[in-house]
Amino acid sequence: MVKVGVAGYGVIGQRLADGAALQKDMELVGVADIAPTISIRALKEKGMPYDLYLVEGADKSKFDALNIPVSGSFEDLIGKVDVMLDSSPGGVGVKNKELYQKAGVKAIFQGGEKDSIADVFFHGYANYEKGLGADYLKLTSCNTTGLIRSVDCLDRKFGVDRVAITIIRRVADPGDYHRGLTNALQMEKAPSHQAVDLMTIMPHIDATGILVHTPVTHGHIITVLAHGINGLITKEQALEAFLEHDRIRVVSIDEGFLGNASLFRYARDLGNPRGDMYEIALWKDSIVESGDNIMYAINIPQESVTIPETLDGVRACMKMQNDSKSATAETNKYLGLGAWK
Amino acid sequence: MVKVGVAGYGVIGQRLADGAALQKDMELVGVADIAPTISIRALKEKGMPYDLYLVEGADKSKFDALNIPVSGSFEDLIGKVDVMLDSSPGGVGVKNKELYQKAGVKAIFQGGEKDSIADVFFHGYANYEKGLGADYLKLTSCNTTGLIRSVDCLDRKFGVDRVAITIIRRVADPGDYHRGLTNALQMEKAPSHQAVDLMTIMPHIDATGILVHTPVTHGHIITVLAHGINGLITKEQALEAFLEHDRIRVVSIDEGFLGNASLFRYARDLGNPRGDMYEIALWKDSIVESGDNIMYAINIPQESVTIPETLDGVRACMKMQNDSKSATAETNKYLGLGAWK
Amino acid sequence: MVKVGVAGYGVIGQRLADGAALQKDMELVGVADIAPTISIRALKEKGMPYDLYLVEGADKSKFDALNIPVSGSFEDLIGKVDVMLDSSPGGVGVKNKELYQKAGVKAIFQGGEKDSIADVFFHGYANYEKGLGADYLKLTSCNTTGLIRSVDCLDRKFGVDRVAITIIRRVADPGDYHRGLTNALQMEKAPSHQAVDLMTIMPHIDATGILVHTPVTHGHIITVLAHGINGLITKEQALEAFLEHDRIRVVSIDEGFLGNASLFRYARDLGNPRGDMYEIALWKDSIVESGDNIMYAINIPQESVTIPETLDGVRACMKMQNDSKSATAETNKYLGLGAWK
Amino acid sequence: MVKVGVAGYGVIGQRLADGAALQKDMELVGVADIAPTISIRALKEKGMPYDLYLVEGADKSKFDALNIPVSGSFEDLIGKVDVMLDSSPGGVGVKNKELYQKAGVKAIFQGGEKDSIADVFFHGYANYEKGLGADYLKLTSCNTTGLIRSVDCLDRKFGVDRVAITIIRRVADPGDYHRGLTNALQMEKAPSHQAVDLMTIMPHIDATGILVHTPVTHGHIITVLAHGINGLITKEQALEAFLEHDRIRVVSIDEGFLGNASLFRYARDLGNPRGDMYEIALWKDSIVESGDNIMYAINIPQESVTIPETLDGVRACMKMQNDSKSATAETNKYLGLGAWK
Repeated sequence: MVKVGVAGYGVIGQRLADGAALQKDMELVGVADIAPTISIRALKEKGMPYDLYLVEGADKSKFDALNIPVSGSFEDLIGKVDVMLDSSPGGVGVKNKELYQKAGVKAIFQGGEKDSIADVFFHGYANYEKGLGADYLKLTSCNTTGLIRSVDCLDRKFGVDRVAITIIRRVADPGDYHRGLTNALQMEKAPSHQAVDLMTIMPHIDATGILVHTPVTHGHIITVLAHGINGLITKEQALEAFLEHDRIRVVSIDEGFLGNASLFRYARDLGNPRGDMYEIALWKDSIVESGDNIMYAINIPQESVTIPETLDGVRACMKMQNDSKSATAETNKYLGLGAWK
Repeated sequence: MVKVGVAGYGVIGQRLADGAALQKDMELVGVADIAPTISIRALKEKGMPYDLYLVEGADKSKFDALNIPVSGSFEDLIGKVDVMLDSSPGGVGVKNKELYQKAGVKAIFQGGEKDSIADVFFHGYANYEKGLGADYLKLTSCNTTGLIRSVDCLDRKFGVDRVAITIIRRVADPGDYHRGLTNALQMEKAPSHQAVDLMTIMPHIDATGILVHTPVTHGHIITVLAHGINGLITKEQALEAFLEHDRIRVVSIDEGFLGNASLFRYARDLGNPRGDMYEIALWKDSIVESGDNIMYAINIPQESVTIPETLDGVRACMKMQNDSKSATAETNKYLGLGAWK
Repeated sequence: MVKVGVAGYGVIGQRLADGAALQKDMELVGVADIAPTISIRALKEKGMPYDLYLVEGADKSKFDALNIPVSGSFEDLIGKVDVMLDSSPGGVGVKNKELYQKAGVKAIFQGGEKDSIADVFFHGYANYEKGLGADYLKLTSCNTTGLIRSVDCLDRKFGVDRVAITIIRRVADPGDYHRGLTNALQMEKAPSHQAVDLMTIMPHIDATGILVHTPVTHGHIITVLAHGINGLITKEQALEAFLEHDRIRVVSIDEGFLGNASLFRYARDLGNPRGDMYEIALWKDSIVESGDNIMYAINIPQESVTIPETLDGVRACMKMQNDSKSATAETNKYLGLGAWK
Repeated sequence: MVKVGVAGYGVIGQRLADGAALQKDMELVGVADIAPTISIRALKEKGMPYDLYLVEGADKSKFDALNIPVSGSFEDLIGKVDVMLDSSPGGVGVKNKELYQKAGVKAIFQGGEKDSIADVFFHGYANYEKGLGADYLKLTSCNTTGLIRSVDCLDRKFGVDRVAITIIRRVADPGDYHRGLTNALQMEKAPSHQAVDLMTIMPHIDATGILVHTPVTHGHIITVLAHGINGLITKEQALEAFLEHDRIRVVSIDEGFLGNASLFRYARDLGNPRGDMYEIALWKDSIVESGDNIMYAINIPQESVTIPETLDGVRACMKMQNDSKSATAETNKYLGLGAWK
């Protein structure tokens, strides 16, 4: 059993903990945080399914006042695990890394950290092999993770050499009050970092694109134009490939999936904890052809989409499986991905 | 075991089914709907925890094409139950009532139907006794249900004879595409129907108020000004009363509950199915005094707030308990309300 | 002086009236409407700068009660003009056309009507010559009008044979309460009608694309991928062409134009009536290259963008100028377009 | 002619400049700012209707590069005026005050500054006399200014001794990207500062209230419960008083004024620069009675509502008129307020 800890029990950290706890070949030792946030209060109200450790700077008396049991310090947690999943706020991971190095513990960082924090910029499908045995991995951001799933899916089967994207970005998560946008679309300078990041993971592809922020909270939507090396990947070919992928849900407007909010509602109706969805969605009725390019639209559930690829990262750095296919299959099995087909 | 069926497996119907299934002295026989909506697709993907019956007009071939098992007709369902919880779209309940009458089955309708559909306009705390043994009850709407909880809580202890409210209404539920508002506040003619409805349930109170729609999806917020019969109900008195109530959560900004979206996030973090919350929230730091009036703000989780009072309604019409106190205690016990205190 | 009337004094009609009144070689005879809407009330409060005529079905007593002077019937207005600008609600134009035909009056319809209503589907730059002397023209929709401006600008100089677009559509206008979207992105089936319409106007181009509705009110944003017939149109070439165009404003994030709302604010700060802008904006810092494609983002001020091209239409159908270049120059001169450069 | 300058040409500063320029007994000498914002760029594009002065820290070369003429330094401007209208960002006014003191120039600050900056916390109707001859005035915030208009209107005629408000606050102005809220209502700790500020201006009134932020940009809505000293102010009495007030527009839902966005649209349709409105609106169909309280809802156009009261402040501190009635009448005359009745 590979022993796993989580640093930062926020939007991503909670989901990493749940995802790791579901992997029958991993053991979730505990989670670490600094303050009794509403997520920690919820952990308490649920009966402490995960042990809580406090990072440096935490005021233990505040936890005591709320009768929240504390299992030890951050160092205590690090001392008990093989690999840390670090979802601390951006910039904190760099400091944490020193502790991981001192303790000889591996770590996987989320997209908010600088690339230099890790040995490998990692994606479970597109470059699993690069992560094998590595000490420090960094995951791609939510948009890039979902985008690469779809591009890699086509690339593996048909070959893709150029990609142009438009990211229609949700600007905040449900419950966020520290950021927001009201009645405005906001431009970012092109090319978007997601296109640039895709090229780091898939260096044989020329990628560019434009990102626009929109005032919604449930799921980014990306339109992708992918150029086939061997000419047009047809609508039918693309659809067939997407349908086979365990982390892609093919949906349609006629079925009732009208947009990102339908997918959030569907995940809630499924009873998924927190209304989470690990899969990206791909609209069947968005696929069109343009010259030698196939164009399509995908939905990225920003809070949970990176969880499977992070767990793939544990498999890679701990050498639990030696190739992407068997590793992603294990992750998917324990998360129930593909089971609904 | 009281046998219960649900008509209309939409936003409310799903939650009624879940709530009834949790009551150990009730049996959920099944749910009825007309089309393979995304909620029905989710039911299928979850493995059909509830049997599905089809109402008249449903095209069974569409369900067959999706391999969704059908257990019979709406009449079949009605024939197996003691009471129907009707959450059909507004106006459909009237037609359904004919079937219920023919079969000699009781029914509880939601707030969207006309008052004339029912013998009693019902609230589990404020007029439970009126519902005892009645054949047809109608629940108050989500806003009125939550509002009455708080007013009844003060009225029982201290006496209230006048109420003035401002409803800051969420305009759509997450996932709604058939209604919405963009960058606009929308007025309704005063007095709001919620104030009028409160007077129907609590005839000794003079109530009025103004409703404004706002472009958000998570929870209405109501400010309430309640006039004490015996002079001012103090801030301390009010707070103490609210803290004792099992369907009211007292929260504060300092704890991290910044608004309606924090409560939705908290319910998600709790792992509540769909991120639902049965309790209204009351902001401790919103309570102020104005002459002989106590003023406070509450949050109404519109999708799930009426579920407990509907289950109270089953208890009343089936005479499972003879008074509000014991009935609401049973409902609360099975829903886990108050357990977190 | 060409005599012009406007049917439907709503969002578009008001702007058509103002635009026509500014053309020194046209005379705005009056506007027609059916009810004392807030726009008609504003016309009254402004002192009736335009004469008002009532269409069939209007209740004159309602206008009398508000002391709004009425100059005659819709037929009276039609009898006084050479060309009607019809901005009635979708579907009404077809009925109006019968009156125009009977009176031997030309008409220009807006994008909401069916293509079959007109002899020519018209754009002032892209196919002006087709409209010469025609009796009935139909304008392209706001998105298509602005999109074609930018594509035609590149096509004229460098040749374009393929276009793929992503439309990030604003879902309602400021003040709309009859439509809206709340915290949701909404998909349309691809290809978007705007891409299809572009091909009708510019048949030598292969166009497709995806449209996503977003909950904002100020300006659509479109990302465009345009394929050069003679190879890549470079970033520098594209920028130079856009800078020369009198109906395109080249802006940048660094200047403070962060998104669609900045452009609305800028138009307000300019003191433009209603905060209108006739120009599309093009973000300099959005332009990127992808293979032989140039990619860029434009902003479409949906309420006012079609006004110049509609006035071009008057020039075409009345043969006021014989070619696009001189006609658009006249329209631009009177609207002050390009003057700011 | 009283000579006036404006410090800070932003949302408020632009409107102060326009308002002062309209007063025939005042002369607007110029405006001062620090950077070529989009508002300054618009000033340039409009042909510099106002002379521009640069505050300390401004980089003149940036203005030169854009061919924006500069008329001198901030001190130069101060040296030419009798009174400065200071709408600098919060906190800057305190530093500016030193320059005003040195030059012996009076100043009026906006609501963002601390109360201690001024000798008098001022409202043109409610305490004009206190501002007579004063050197430094501070205006109430937009919400408080509009609220006081309506309360003072009732108080003067009938006597008011208690007020309880609910503020449904717009969270950002159109074009704001530095603040925003997405799909969330946000609570503030009660009592709201607007209620507290009202008591400073009208010390005979006991006021309290709750403020909730909402994700919209056009106009705050406030519900007010006002207690009559001499018993209930009836609906008819209140309406009559409101109808007589030149800075209050009485509107109704039936006329088409459905909410704050209708009022913004109406101001745009009127052709008011920037779509501004100086008047608050009061919904006739929102007025209800509750015991001895009259309850009603008003709309506050946050960008422009304080302009008239600021100009009243110039009249007070410069002793242009000796009482509120004649001063507000002058301001109203030049702004055209009440003329539409």
